[in-house]
Amino acid sequence: MDNVCGTSRIAGCSFSIYPMADKFKEIILDALNQVDTSKVWMETDDVTTLVRGRIPHVFDVTSAIFLAAAKTDEHIVFNGTYSIGCPGDSTGDVYMAEDETKLNMSNIKDIRLETASKFSLYPLGGGNYMDTIYTQIENMRAQGITVSKSHYSTRLDGNAYDVFAGLEHVFIETEASGSSHTVMTVTMSANSPSAKGAIQ
Amino acid sequence: MDNVCGTSRIAGCSFSIYPMADKFKEIILDALNQVDTSKVWMETDDVTTLVRGRIPHVFDVTSAIFLAAAKTDEHIVFNGTYSIGCPGDSTGDVYMAEDETKLNMSNIKDIRLETASKFSLYPLGGGNYMDTIYTQIENMRAQGITVSKSHYSTRLDGNAYDVFAGLEHVFIETEASGSSHTVMTVTMSANSPSAKGAIQ
Ligand SMILES: [Ca+2]
Repeated sequence: MDNVCGTSRIAGCSFSIYPMADKFKEIILDALNQVDTSKVWMETDDVTTLVRGRIPHVFDVTSAIFLAAAKTDEHIVFNGTYSIGCPGDSTGDVYMAEDETKLNMSNIKDIRLETASKFSLYPLGGGNYMDTIYTQIENMRAQGITVSKSHYSTRLDGNAYDVFAGLEHVFIETEASGSSHTVMTVTMSANSPSAKGAIQ
Repeated sequence: MDNVCGTSRIAGCSFSIYPMADKFKEIILDALNQVDTSKVWMETDDVTTLVRGRIPHVFDVTSAIFLAAAKTDEHIVFNGTYSIGCPGDSTGDVYMAEDETKLNMSNIKDIRLETASKFSLYPLGGGNYMDTIYTQIENMRAQGITVSKSHYSTRLDGNAYDVFAGLEHVFIETEASGSSHTVMTVTMSANSPSAKGAIQ
């Protein structure tokens, strides 16, 4: 809604974890507590959690929180909107001085978790992104992720860590292709009782 | 991801209802069963539900399903991406012949439900939309909705039915302002134990 773009390349994600369980609050708080968030600015309210910082840490923290919640084996959905380039406010800019070493990767890279996701990419600021996206989609397929077309989105079925890695690459490459404002929405579902089929 | 836009003005919403309760599946199915979806094309898989049709019916059906689920008093979150104008595939085009009379409005318009929402509007196809949005925001305030700025989104606190009505107007007016492809993302939370405060 804000028409003014800043120059900071700080990335951010507005996300929520939805545990479909009576003990949802406990699951969310436990997940948040298991993740090292010291390289990102972070704020949680009653609707979403916001993380801001360098791209690798934004993906590291969001994927680690989702995986921590999914370890409970409850049906968990992650919904996030990744954004870079606009509206360009300066909250959290100090975190841009962090290095690129992901703090949570060593804890999560060996976790195998089958997930079903849908993502959409909105390059709002131009750029020559289509070839980039096709290349990244092929890279995801090479990682064993099943890619299919859905209405308004692209569906990804595969291991959570690999899917997040693929999404991070799509986001980085779209930004690198010249889009001054890139938005990517992601819905990822794990431990669903109706996985890969219509709800019965 | 699809760069080809069609000419059909069919609208759609890819959405999910997240009941934070062990009986989430029962709540979702009960809600779906309570709503008249005969004026929209609809398909549910394990990640999202898609509705497509004329704008009034897409909002009527999505808001009615959310309200039906929220009647359980469980903590329920609605997450939806409304889209019009692209990729312009033809699925559900037959529903464009329906009239504008909303089938579920009489059942839901008197329900009072306090909600907290965040929405973002992405006019991907140009258009002169900023004045339109400010006018609609003022209309929402006049309806008793509290409007505030959040990172990457606008926050709305108020009665569910009024908030959905406001969002529908923003969407319609943005499209009318000349945006050839409009996307709006909405996260709406009801019955949250941590409403209007940080999660404790
Ligand atoms: Ca229980």
